Formats: sequence, structure tokens, C-alpha cells
Amino acid sequence: MKTTLFARHDIAAIVRSTGLNRLMDETIDGLAEACLQVDAGHFSIPLRSGFQYSHPRTGLVEWMPAMRMGEHIVVKMVGYHPENPQVLGVPTILSTVLVFDPASGHLCSIIDGTFLTALRTGAASALASRYLMRSGSETLGLIGAGAQAVTQLHALSRVMPLRRVHVFDTDAATGASFIHRIGGFELPDVDVAVSDLATASACDVVCTATSVAVGAGPVLSDQHLQPSVHINAVGSDFPGKTELPQSFVKRAVVCPDFRAQAMLEGECQQLKEAEVGPDLLELVRRGDENYGLRNQATVFDSTGWALEDFVVAQILTRYGQALGVGQAVALESLADDPKDPYGFVRSIEDGLSSISATR
Amino acid sequence: MKTTLFARHDIAAIVRSTGLNRLMDETIDGLAEACLQVDAGHFSIPLRSGFQYSHPRTGLVEWMPAMRMGEHIVVKMVGYHPENPQVLGVPTILSTVLVFDPASGHLCSIIDGTFLTALRTGAASALASRYLMRSGSETLGLIGAGAQAVTQLHALSRVMPLRRVHVFDTDAATGASFIHRIGGFELPDVDVAVSDLATASACDVVCTATSVAVGAGPVLSDQHLQPSVHINAVGSDFPGKTELPQSFVKRAVVCPDFRAQAMLEGECQQLKEAEVGPDLLELVRRGDENYGLRNQATVFDSTGWALEDFVVAQILTRYGQALGVGQAVALESLADDPKDPYGFVRSIEDGLSSISATR
Repeated sequence: MKTTLFARHDIAAIVRSTGLNRLMDETIDGLAEACLQVDAGHFSIPLRSGFQYSHPRTGLVEWMPAMRMGEHIVVKMVGYHPENPQVLGVPTILSTVLVFDPASGHLCSIIDGTFLTALRTGAASALASRYLMRSGSETLGLIGAGAQAVTQLHALSRVMPLRRVHVFDTDAATGASFIHRIGGFELPDVDVAVSDLATASACDVVCTATSVAVGAGPVLSDQHLQPSVHINAVGSDFPGKTELPQSFVKRAVVCPDFRAQAMLEGECQQLKEAEVGPDLLELVRRGDENYGLRNQATVFDSTGWALEDFVVAQILTRYGQALGVGQAVALESLADDPKDPYGFVRSIEDGLSSISATR
Repeated sequence: MKTTLFARHDIAAIVRSTGLNRLMDETIDGLAEACLQVDAGHFSIPLRSGFQYSHPRTGLVEWMPAMRMGEHIVVKMVGYHPENPQVLGVPTILSTVLVFDPASGHLCSIIDGTFLTALRTGAASALASRYLMRSGSETLGLIGAGAQAVTQLHALSRVMPLRRVHVFDTDAATGASFIHRIGGFELPDVDVAVSDLATASACDVVCTATSVAVGAGPVLSDQHLQPSVHINAVGSDFPGKTELPQSFVKRAVVCPDFRAQAMLEGECQQLKEAEVGPDLLELVRRGDENYGLRNQATVFDSTGWALEDFVVAQILTRYGQALGVGQAVALESLADDPKDPYGFVRSIEDGLSSISATR
């Protein structure tokens, strides 16, 4: 019973071998299936919790647990520190995913969470959009052109007949570099252009993925939106942070990923609980019956849900195992005599350590 | 920014170089100091939480978080699966400790939790006993002779003028093997004998560390106890599981490690909240003023507290770094361009991976 580490370079090997499209498609479909399983009572997904602080710098470290009963426990540990890029030159979000076997408590694997999170956030929007966007939607507006915009575009390109993408960012350099950052996947016959806010807002489907400060929203104007627009609101994930105009949120059918969390951190903060529409589970369960929503203004209020992490963790470990990537380490004590807590100091003397120190 | 893994063999190297006594002494003193820091508001320690289930086997996986503000976040992930030894031949408890830097969210280290937990559980009893045992206590009774009994004995040998130890276990083989399992530390001039329950119960200090089933306690009889006995009750750590007779618990001053948790899982379950005595923090804070308790019957109700794990995690990582043990792995994505979520697939192609796969 070793623990397999899937670090950044292992994930890269999995992506190169499997392909981004296949991983995205399997995540979208896997999430749909997992929603049905949650609905059938096979999962336990508590609210995330953690530490939030302003010293030494503003940030939080939190854990997002999900269990498919009798199968796997996945806990994503997430750090969110907005000053990281400027102060330390590292990403705002660092995360690590732990996979446990509920038959024994064994820590099966530890996965770098960055790609996993990017993939699942895109996939969740794609799944919701499948049910909520107007039929024939072919233009996509991206408000905020950072990392999330890349995966939103990739994910949506898998579920809609995309013809035209309008990208807007308040930072011109971020907008300009967007075209280079989407080189990892094919977008045949899609025209991608840096645009103004009004044009990006007027698309059939809009994704907001900004780092707007708490209280500084909204990031777009109600007057530019189509009557039956579908918006994936990805950026609001913090108490006080919202991206959409309240007038629009009040008018639209707002579908949260995880209701209790969205009420605290998402666009749903702008609504009373009774004003919130069906959640992702309900959308997936009702399937075709949702068509009534396609011709209305709709919002997918994406705050990030541990179920999504669970799905990608399973996909990545499955491919990782099949490819034989990942580093197996003897991390946990599996002592010969569990009643002898100090025995390992003696017994290990004869070179039980198969992995030697590399520092 | 790499993540350092301290696996079983790394911990063994630290113990061999540092010595069990020094590690135990530093843990006891470090815990006392940490208690004062908690008292001064420097820590945040939420209640542990997790998943509990009966399928595929009875068990739980939980997380125990503690943060010293501005310094470190420590989260111990614990699996408790009582059928592990028989079914899988691995210990009931498996645990892994994660250490984060709150300045960045970086996962600094991952530590095998088995030795850490053994050490801290002993140290907590020793610290409490320092304040609660009758002056001149020189006999120690161990009820339950498993792994915990070894570290209870070791820890108490560091804080009391120990002359005689009486060990009792309902399983004769466990009792008999105890002498061999305490070979890791020196006990000069201490007489250790396997005894009956009455003799072990009649000592100056008693430690109960049994795996008695929920509802099957108590594990000793009130009538054998000395009027001013101090008991470290280590085994009760689960709703419904208690080791001590209620008549005794009602009469004694019961001091929990962590009040809210002890009310749910410890001997305190047998008490109303108002009947519970000072907690470990208060004992440490009041220092010499506690002497009044030494001549009364007292209980340290040890349910396991994340602060204890925090203290040992810091000690082990400090020694580990000084010795240069541990394996540094590039687990987290620290991408050149955080806005380019798929960029790593391309950039890593040229051999960024310093640790190659070993599977």
C-alpha cells in the first residue's frame, strides 16, 4: 500500500497521451453521471470549510471533501492568496487533491490540483450550458480573459456549435495574450476576437470569470445582454464578491452548482433563497424537461463544488495508473507490529527505505 | 517551492539522530508553550470533522486542522478502521499530516502521522499529569497494553519519579509482549510487571488506553482506585465509548484536552457541561495554582487535539530540515504563466521533471 504522487509533470504526461478534448468530454459526462449518483444518495458532500485570514497576507486555506460511499474519499486542499503573483511570483490558487480508500483509510494518491480544477470548472459550465443555453447558440462572450476563460472556452466548444468568440478584459495585455493561450486545443472555424465589453456581453452565451474585488461588481451592464442569454458566472466565489447586475440576477433563472455554498459566496448572494432556481443536480435529473429554460435568461452560478473535483480525480488516477505515471512512495507507516510504536526506528535500520532522500 | 515528504524511514532517521527522550521532552514543553499561545489568541483550532460510515467496512476519515496565525497551518488527515489489522494486516489508524504556509498556501510538507500521533498522545498525558498527579507519585498502572501504553509509559517516565509499573491487558499475549515493546527507551530502576486489573488500578497514576467497544465500558472498577488517583483516559475518543465508571467520573475533577470534543467523544460524555473541570489550557495557564487538584481524584480526558499534532509537526520538520532528510517533490503547479492553464503540457515537454517516475 503505497501512495502515488501525481505531480505537474505526471499530469502533463496524462494530458499528452489522452488529449485535452477527451479529458474534457469525459469530465463533462462524468459530472453528469455523478450528479445522478448524488441524487440517488451515493455521495456525501459536506460544505467546504477552512481558515481565512489577513495576516501575513490576505488569503485562505480550505478543504473540499466528497465521498462516493464505499468507493473513494476525495479531499481537495486549496490555498487562495491573491497577492501571490506580485509578491512571490506563484499562482493565486495552489491546490492538492488527496484520494483515500474508505475500506482502510489508506491515502491512495496525491494529485496536483491546478489542472484538475481548471478542467472541472470548465466542465461544470459546459454541463449547465447544455441544459440552459438557447438552442443554436453560436456566439460566446468571455468577460475576463485569464486562466478560467481558457478552460471555459475549451469546455463550451465541446457542447455548442461555436462560431464566434468575443473576449474582453479590463487589462489589455491579458486580452491580447488570450489568443496565444488557447493554442492547446483545436477550434476549427471559430473566430476569436478581442472585443469591447458591450460586444462580449451581447453574445448567446457569456462567461464571467473576473477577479473583480469584493463590492466592486457588476462587471457587465444589464442593457447589453440578450433576453435569453445564458451566463456562466464563474468569478463569484467569495462572500461579497459578485459579477452580475442584481437587476439581471433577479430576472434570470439562477441555477447554482451547490445551493448552500452559492447562497454564501455566489451570485445567489443577491437573491433570497426562494428566488434561486434549480441546482445542477436538478437540471441533470430533469434532463429534457428543462427546455422551458432555454428561452429565458439563465445563470449558472458556479462557486466550485467538491463533486467536480471528485470526478476529475477519478479520471486522472485511472489514466495515470493505466499509463504507469506517478511516483509511488511509502509514506504511511504500515508497521509489522502496530502495537509497537517505536519499533520502526529499529526495524528500518536495515534499509527498508526503497525511496532514498533526494534533497 | 517544493513539498517535502517525511515518510516512515525519514521519521526513523530523525528519531535515531535526536533520541526519543529529547523528542518527547520537547513535545511536552512545546505543548505547554503552545497552550499559552492558544490562550493568548495566536491559534485557530476548529473542531475536527470528517466522514463516518459502515460500508465497505466500519470506519472514518477525518481532518484535524490547527493554525498558528501567520506561521503555519497543520491539517492531520486520519483514517480509523478497526477491522484493518484482521482484514488487511495494516494498522487501525493511518494518518498523514499536511503543513501549509499561510503566506502563500504552499504545501510545505507531508508527514507520516503514526509516530507523530503516538508521541503527542503520550506528551499530552504527561503534561496534564504534571499538574494533576499527587506529589511523589511513583507507581503507574497501564490498563490496556497496546501501542498507546508504550508511549504513555515513555511520556510519564519523563515527568514522574517512576518506580513501579503495573500493566494489565485483557489479552494475555498483548500484556506479555509489552516488556519487549518498551525496549526503545531507558527506564533505569523501574520495575515493570504484568499484573491483574485490581493492582494496575490501585497505582498513583493510571492510564486507560483500551479498545473497549462502544457501550462495553467501564474497563476498571471504582473500588480499586486510590482516593487521589490521577487517570489519563486515552481510549475514549468516539461517541458512546467511555472507559471509566460514571461514579468515579462524577466524583473526580475531569480535565479535557478540548472541551467541545470531549463532551462528544470523551469521558465528559458522562457529565453535564457544568460538571467538567478546567481544560488543558486552563491547567497550563494557572500553573502552580492547581496544587489543590493534586490531592483530589483527577482525570485527563484525552480525545486527541489538533494543537498536539501541530506541535510535533513543527518539531519533526525542524529536525528533518536540519538533518536534510525527507524527499523534496515538485508536486504543485507553479506555472510560468498562471493565466495559461494548458501551457504546462507544452512547457514540460523539455524535461522540467526533476523527479522521474519510479513505478
